[in-house]
Amino acid sequence: MKRIDVLKKVAFEKKTDGFLVFNSANLTWLTGFSGASALLIPKNGESRAYVYGVNYEYAKAQSGGVTVELVKRGENLLGIIAKQALALEIKRLAVDALNVEGWQVLTKFLGGEKTLEVDNQYLRELRMVKDENEIQLMRKAGELTSEGMRVAREVLAAGVKEYEVAAEIEYAMRMLGSSGTAFETIVASGVSSAFPHGGCSDTKMREGDLVVVDIGATYKFYRSDMTRTFVVGKPSEKQKKLYQTVKAAQETALGKVMPGVKAADVDAAARKIMVDAGYGAYFVHGLGHGVGLEVHEPPILSPDSKDVLAVGNVVTVEPGVYLVGYGGIRIEDTVLVQKDGAQKLTDGDTSRI
Amino acid sequence: MKRIDVLKKVAFEKKTDGFLVFNSANLTWLTGFSGASALLIPKNGESRAYVYGVNYEYAKAQSGGVTVELVKRGENLLGIIAKQALALEIKRLAVDALNVEGWQVLTKFLGGEKTLEVDNQYLRELRMVKDENEIQLMRKAGELTSEGMRVAREVLAAGVKEYEVAAEIEYAMRMLGSSGTAFETIVASGVSSAFPHGGCSDTKMREGDLVVVDIGATYKFYRSDMTRTFVVGKPSEKQKKLYQTVKAAQETALGKVMPGVKAADVDAAARKIMVDAGYGAYFVHGLGHGVGLEVHEPPILSPDSKDVLAVGNVVTVEPGVYLVGYGGIRIEDTVLVQKDGAQKLTDGDTSRI
Repeated sequence: MKRIDVLKKVAFEKKTDGFLVFNSANLTWLTGFSGASALLIPKNGESRAYVYGVNYEYAKAQSGGVTVELVKRGENLLGIIAKQALALEIKRLAVDALNVEGWQVLTKFLGGEKTLEVDNQYLRELRMVKDENEIQLMRKAGELTSEGMRVAREVLAAGVKEYEVAAEIEYAMRMLGSSGTAFETIVASGVSSAFPHGGCSDTKMREGDLVVVDIGATYKFYRSDMTRTFVVGKPSEKQKKLYQTVKAAQETALGKVMPGVKAADVDAAARKIMVDAGYGAYFVHGLGHGVGLEVHEPPILSPDSKDVLAVGNVVTVEPGVYLVGYGGIRIEDTVLVQKDGAQKLTDGDTSRI
Repeated sequence: MKRIDVLKKVAFEKKTDGFLVFNSANLTWLTGFSGASALLIPKNGESRAYVYGVNYEYAKAQSGGVTVELVKRGENLLGIIAKQALALEIKRLAVDALNVEGWQVLTKFLGGEKTLEVDNQYLRELRMVKDENEIQLMRKAGELTSEGMRVAREVLAAGVKEYEVAAEIEYAMRMLGSSGTAFETIVASGVSSAFPHGGCSDTKMREGDLVVVDIGATYKFYRSDMTRTFVVGKPSEKQKKLYQTVKAAQETALGKVMPGVKAADVDAAARKIMVDAGYGAYFVHGLGHGVGLEVHEPPILSPDSKDVLAVGNVVTVEPGVYLVGYGGIRIEDTVLVQKDGAQKLTDGDTSRI
């Protein structure tokens, strides 16, 4: 397990002699399958995935080397992990994520709070840089998403319900091999388009409506994220102007994406275009976020971000403008950070404005 | 806000004078919308939902009475909640869910661990009993799911890929108004059907395969859960025998569902049928779980469960048998616990065995 070895190297430089993983994306990243409830990685000794009966046989069939232990009915998961940690003489255990109750139970089993520390940085940082295999899967997820957007463009019309558009998009992505949506599909028309997370209702689209379509396919656990904004029928001058502003903000930001650049500076480049056009107050969210096994993960592109972009990061670039009572526009692509800048994983000049 | 009032009544009998909610299903249940990051319910004073900019206008448009406060860029959510809690002179704050890091930050802001306690029981118990409005939404979610299953039956055939069946099911549910799947659709054929959570791959179904189809629609936040098992073509004697056993286990368990009955006893009734038929070791999961805003919520129907069924509970009843290397069978319905027993919210004698 190469990734487990990398984690060991990083984690055990820092005075811990065991790492305990609960976050499901981290578990999938390390084990290669979904369905483990926990993974104990000791400095000395073999790593062990803990799996309940409902997933046990599947985990055994999928696991490429990690030992899979069945959590039997009536057993306490934290209890058996603590027992194993004590048997392996782990003195200081780092854990990626744990709720308060779990923390209290586990420290009790382990014999005191000093034996346990929470650290979600190791794994987050490792997962931020995608390897060749991951990039290939994300490229595929991006292609499926772009195909879904082409279908959106085809079916959008006055009189069609928002959720009918969602149905066609999701069907197209599924039939090409998407294993489900990366997040809840957004098709938000008219005044709903002014809500960045405006849902997908039974509202029928009307002539002249702005329609924000925000979608993502998933391919072998890897996600994608893409938004286009359409106008039903002929766009007005105001819609065109808004659209061109958001488009310019995205293009400027994309040009700024480069390894070594501060994520906050990429956000600032887009935000400046919006502010200069008088829409600064209406760009109500950060410019983007990392994508991978989760649809929102580091690095974060926002004014507050401390992240610095690196080769292998996959991030969204998604400026938007939201005028309550009127409508909104967002343009978003998922891009790979390469040596010479951003490469789009989602693509297609599919907007209609 | 009626539900908030109920929570106040229950929570404040128990020495707390404030309740802080982070769990997203709890937030939706209490506020009626999705998108809040937290909700502070003081004993004295108005309740307040905390919402980031990206969801703020939507939350204001949807909220039916609760005050919506914008979390501005750069503000610390836990910091502003603590400030408000101190201003309202909350001495002891109960919180439904919090990770270790959040706990540490919040206790620091509040001035000590004694001011904070974790309690996820109040809300779980309240949410276990569905009201008339919720039952209506779950009935609709069940109808959409049953319709999806009818489509599954139609399209299943040798040569069709598992994910193509998923595409047709999801399309049908969406076009009827489902707002997305309640969980990742399972279409598991052949040996994959022996994995209870066997995925949905590009495997083509073959003549004679067992195919487990486990699906759920969502309607206005409320979920449903249903499984049928089919055979492609003509079932074998062994398949028929297995199917009849699982069917008998489900029917027996459904007959046992009644207010006041221990959930563990319902599980035991189904499990006895499986054990008597020699399949006890192959029924590798609990009999069922509650369904509502989440697809897995209390009450739990399993050998270890301490839950007792009550009128208004909505639970799944889903015995299964899983023979590794051969295949599996599961039959599942979502049912409402009524005065006189279980009423199916999913239905249809759609299996082909």
